[in-house]
Amino acid sequence: MEKNGNSLIFKNQTIFYNDRPILSYASDKTFAFIGRGTEQVKMYRGNFDIQDYVESRVPLNHFEIAETNEAITFNLSSNGQTQLLQIRTELDKFGRLVLKLISKDKTYNRLWLRLPATAQEKIYGCGEQLSYFNLRGNHFPLWTSEPGIGRNKSTLTTFKADTQDNAGGDYYTTNFPEPTFISTQKYYCHTNSFVYVDFDFRNPEFHELQYWGIPESIVFETADTYNQLLGKLTNLLGHQPILPNWTDEGLLLGIQGGTQRTYDTVDKLRAAGVKIAGVFCQDWEGTRQTSFGKRNFWNWEWNPALYPGLDTKIHEWKDEGIRFLSYINPYLVDTSALYAAAAKNGYFAKNSDGSIYLVDFGEFNCGVVDFTNPAAFDWFKELIKTNLIDFGCDGWMADFGEYLPTDVVLFDGSDPMIRHNEWPALWAKCNHDAVAEAGKTGQIVYFMRAGATGSQRYCPMLWAGDQSVNWSLDDGIASTIPAALSVGMTGMGLTHSDIGGYTSMHGNVRSKELFMRWAEMSAFTSLMRSHEGNRPAENFQVWDDDDAIQYLAKFTDVFQRLAPYRRTLVAENNEYGLPVQRPLFLEYENDSVAYDIQYEYLFGSDMLVVPVYQETQTDWDVYLPDDEWIHLWSGQEFHGGHHTVAAPLGEIPVFYRKKSEFRTLFTEITNQKYSNY
Amino acid sequence: MEKNGNSLIFKNQTIFYNDRPILSYASDKTFAFIGRGTEQVKMYRGNFDIQDYVESRVPLNHFEIAETNEAITFNLSSNGQTQLLQIRTELDKFGRLVLKLISKDKTYNRLWLRLPATAQEKIYGCGEQLSYFNLRGNHFPLWTSEPGIGRNKSTLTTFKADTQDNAGGDYYTTNFPEPTFISTQKYYCHTNSFVYVDFDFRNPEFHELQYWGIPESIVFETADTYNQLLGKLTNLLGHQPILPNWTDEGLLLGIQGGTQRTYDTVDKLRAAGVKIAGVFCQDWEGTRQTSFGKRNFWNWEWNPALYPGLDTKIHEWKDEGIRFLSYINPYLVDTSALYAAAAKNGYFAKNSDGSIYLVDFGEFNCGVVDFTNPAAFDWFKELIKTNLIDFGCDGWMADFGEYLPTDVVLFDGSDPMIRHNEWPALWAKCNHDAVAEAGKTGQIVYFMRAGATGSQRYCPMLWAGDQSVNWSLDDGIASTIPAALSVGMTGMGLTHSDIGGYTSMHGNVRSKELFMRWAEMSAFTSLMRSHEGNRPAENFQVWDDDDAIQYLAKFTDVFQRLAPYRRTLVAENNEYGLPVQRPLFLEYENDSVAYDIQYEYLFGSDMLVVPVYQETQTDWDVYLPDDEWIHLWSGQEFHGGHHTVAAPLGEIPVFYRKKSEFRTLFTEITNQKYSNY
Repeated sequence: MEKNGNSLIFKNQTIFYNDRPILSYASDKTFAFIGRGTEQVKMYRGNFDIQDYVESRVPLNHFEIAETNEAITFNLSSNGQTQLLQIRTELDKFGRLVLKLISKDKTYNRLWLRLPATAQEKIYGCGEQLSYFNLRGNHFPLWTSEPGIGRNKSTLTTFKADTQDNAGGDYYTTNFPEPTFISTQKYYCHTNSFVYVDFDFRNPEFHELQYWGIPESIVFETADTYNQLLGKLTNLLGHQPILPNWTDEGLLLGIQGGTQRTYDTVDKLRAAGVKIAGVFCQDWEGTRQTSFGKRNFWNWEWNPALYPGLDTKIHEWKDEGIRFLSYINPYLVDTSALYAAAAKNGYFAKNSDGSIYLVDFGEFNCGVVDFTNPAAFDWFKELIKTNLIDFGCDGWMADFGEYLPTDVVLFDGSDPMIRHNEWPALWAKCNHDAVAEAGKTGQIVYFMRAGATGSQRYCPMLWAGDQSVNWSLDDGIASTIPAALSVGMTGMGLTHSDIGGYTSMHGNVRSKELFMRWAEMSAFTSLMRSHEGNRPAENFQVWDDDDAIQYLAKFTDVFQRLAPYRRTLVAENNEYGLPVQRPLFLEYENDSVAYDIQYEYLFGSDMLVVPVYQETQTDWDVYLPDDEWIHLWSGQEFHGGHHTVAAPLGEIPVFYRKKSEFRTLFTEITNQKYSNY
Repeated sequence: MEKNGNSLIFKNQTIFYNDRPILSYASDKTFAFIGRGTEQVKMYRGNFDIQDYVESRVPLNHFEIAETNEAITFNLSSNGQTQLLQIRTELDKFGRLVLKLISKDKTYNRLWLRLPATAQEKIYGCGEQLSYFNLRGNHFPLWTSEPGIGRNKSTLTTFKADTQDNAGGDYYTTNFPEPTFISTQKYYCHTNSFVYVDFDFRNPEFHELQYWGIPESIVFETADTYNQLLGKLTNLLGHQPILPNWTDEGLLLGIQGGTQRTYDTVDKLRAAGVKIAGVFCQDWEGTRQTSFGKRNFWNWEWNPALYPGLDTKIHEWKDEGIRFLSYINPYLVDTSALYAAAAKNGYFAKNSDGSIYLVDFGEFNCGVVDFTNPAAFDWFKELIKTNLIDFGCDGWMADFGEYLPTDVVLFDGSDPMIRHNEWPALWAKCNHDAVAEAGKTGQIVYFMRAGATGSQRYCPMLWAGDQSVNWSLDDGIASTIPAALSVGMTGMGLTHSDIGGYTSMHGNVRSKELFMRWAEMSAFTSLMRSHEGNRPAENFQVWDDDDAIQYLAKFTDVFQRLAPYRRTLVAENNEYGLPVQRPLFLEYENDSVAYDIQYEYLFGSDMLVVPVYQETQTDWDVYLPDDEWIHLWSGQEFHGGHHTVAAPLGEIPVFYRKKSEFRTLFTEITNQKYSNY
């Protein structure tokens, strides 16, 4: 059948969608297995230990197939008698292929679905993946959680984090998992479900999608180019709004410690030429000290003791071009006034005995605002409107969202095993609705680390979570690059990261050099924002070092100068779903090397960025697709291929396309004279 | 039906064997699942990474049952049509329950079998288990391998061993796995198969036995007491011979470095009162140095350069009461003369291209003598007879046996995935036959770390493998206790360990105190033998320390004095399958506490030993079953219960039964005066 130029054909025991085999079986192999499993889920401070005992995994290799003008329907069984699963394949009005799955025996809670694959095929997406961009060769449990410290079982950092706090993570742990990917067969595959999944891309002949539950539907679209494919994907998932212009004005300075310190520091940095668009004061609502480090108090209202006069200062600063960004998350500490109010109204998720479920966030306990309760959702939304928006905040970190325990009782009776992965989207929507109802969409920027299907629609900006303050591939500066590329392949084109990283644990301490390399990279992303980290006093802070201030002055200036170019990228993301940070193959489809590069990116179509992610480097190996490239700092021309280029501090390898219409702008940067660097 | 006083009854959808439910099903649950899996086995220097991709796991929940006078036969299918598995249950002539399994579809290579369990039930055995004695609460992959360094993923030693050499091991890694266990339902269960298995004892309602292949048969017996049960088990598996009397004469001194050094050291120690029965010179055939430490040369013949005159000395020493024990293993280094001879005759396991398969043993490569080739087996057996027995050795370490790769081509075409676990038994048989054909059974002692079904028959003495030279529970002195107890529950009653431990890696160095605690424990085992360890120069050696020599003098004297008592234990092991080191519950069945004690043991029925396995201890907590006990060192009487007793160096907590017929002997030890300790 055909719809909107798309074709669905069943022949040779295979469903072809626009000539791509999607489901295929033979006498000795099937595409569906159903079974029963018993999971064991343990959460410790947002880190999960998830085990499954699979009692059965039954091949569904008896097919009854019904073909109509509307759909091709598979009635599947293991014995030719008792129907266990129905998969209805059809084209929707846009021509998308939709697989509708209907369980015929509700006692089965596991499904494995195989999609045909080729050995050469590559897969990207699945939300924010920090260790691998091309997902082929590994399997990816998709479950929102703490990202983990170290994220590599062979590193001492991860070992220490695991043995001390179960907090080490692994290559797949992420705040933002999503069952959405694109294939180099030029299709996307998106699953409409929030169940726990584990997508296995290891087999050369098939992708195996494991679901802990029967998903409602699975959607596919194809396109001739990856750019078109992302356009179609974001048509499905939603488009992010454009960023407010003020974000282009410079750095969002992460700083804590109160009104005076904030103002004095801004003053000092501005005087030294640092371009600052705003301050991000996560401790606006008070602080606490834990063994992990400096934490916020988690009662979402201005703390006048720490920030005296902020209610008037916030507006004065705005007049001076300094926006104020605060912090919030969807939990309330049990010793707070807001907690008491929410408790009184029954707004928290419960234990089975009806008491409030308290979650350990690391030496303090919090209630989980139950977003399945419309009254709780509205109350929290109003809290955002009153305490943040009306107060004058132009943005905030909308932190967390990954900690929904799987044994809570929710207001609407829904299954927390399913709600868990959805929670970040509910949390995003709460922020989104508050901003929208305040009429501030496109003016306010809240940024989230947690994500889910729906984030595309409800979250205007991601950040890559809590990197370690080091050079590790899996958890340091490098990891932010595949993170940006993979969310881009999941329909989220706006992301950034904490300049200098965040997590200082187990001997990792931020160096000046790390801060510098992170700052120079961030100038070529959607947003520039710094963070003091979890242990501010022990780690490098830019304001303590005049040389680094000069460095920051240069790169905030570069960031600001790139505004006209960045505006076009942000608009392309909004309109076409083209991410601001793009993998090389997106623009160079015929370049086979480009598909395996995960530590370079295109900043829009005209600029190629190759961040230096190792210390003490003075030159750096880069790969350039076949084009005419101008090295941003020297003006030297390069052509496609592998090159080693000079990359001292201050000269992150960046190239622009010679034919770019922004060449004049880029040349201005080349010609700019900065002190020291 | 009944046979030999045993009953087999099928009622209520359950097979009862002597009133114990063995197989049971209901409309919604089965006892058998069949499936297909694809394993991935990677070996690195005897450490294995084994993964399985389970494509299907199908409940066999359609039963056709045929009952005759001879057997109750289950014909199992998943759909009531195609028979996939037949399980025939019958009593053999001894009254044993035998489950005979016949696969009806050879494309299935995985089987999961469930045995009914109760929540309180405990399980012991499965070969030599070093981390857990009671196996309930964990699953145990059974695959012979290096034991691992550290054997606990949460320790820094294991982390370092894993990340540097994949050598860290885990709680279940062992040289001697065996699919044989006893249940506190007072049955044993033994599987006649060498396939990879993973026995899962975590579920409160069933034990799940996973087989990578369909085993030929599974055998059960029951008894009224555990003593009787072990008698029945060893009737099935074989009885170990008694130890030669000379082993009671004192220490087998592990020493290296040549004729002169050996003699001088024996001289020094004997002069100081150390009782020595023999020397164990593993470098009798030459040495090599690797990054791991001092290794042997692996060419199994006397090296006259290092041991000049040994051919005559060996007899002179014997006349002086010093037996000579050497070393051998079933591999040959590719640079040796014996290798060349074996290669010429085609005695090695092959690659698929017909070339000799070389195994990396740590900076040197060896061929694997192919014991499935009768000519190779005989050649190696003759080599043992000529080079070891005829040469005058009274024993040797018959090391290794765990390294059969799974991708070799064997002479008889058999599957190395199955032969792998059998290899230690073939290696034991090669030694056994050599000794038997030389007419030396019961006179020669070879000791092995690797084991399998068959070791009971072919191996007269185990040792607990290569402990780390430390106090860790999973890989130090403590681990030798559950090791001894679990092999005892597998039908092997004679074992010992390297006094002082062996593996000095990743910062672990043997201390004097560790040597002392290990020595005092070893006095109350079957055999006393020391080892220099893998890095002799860096670790404590007793001959360097006069104080420790005095200590050793005391405990070799105690060991020697215990000879009459030990003789009875060795005889009980030979005759009744009662291990020399016994768990407390074996003699105190009604003591519920006894079943969970894994760091104490009964040395025979009359002596209770509670080794001190932590450093700097001066007293120690002990549990005594309800009896009248005399503390060996003080003569003080104790009764059942928990006690804290003095346990300074030299006074390992040991108690004997007041009513023991060996009380006079024990009292002599109490009254003995030793210097220093």
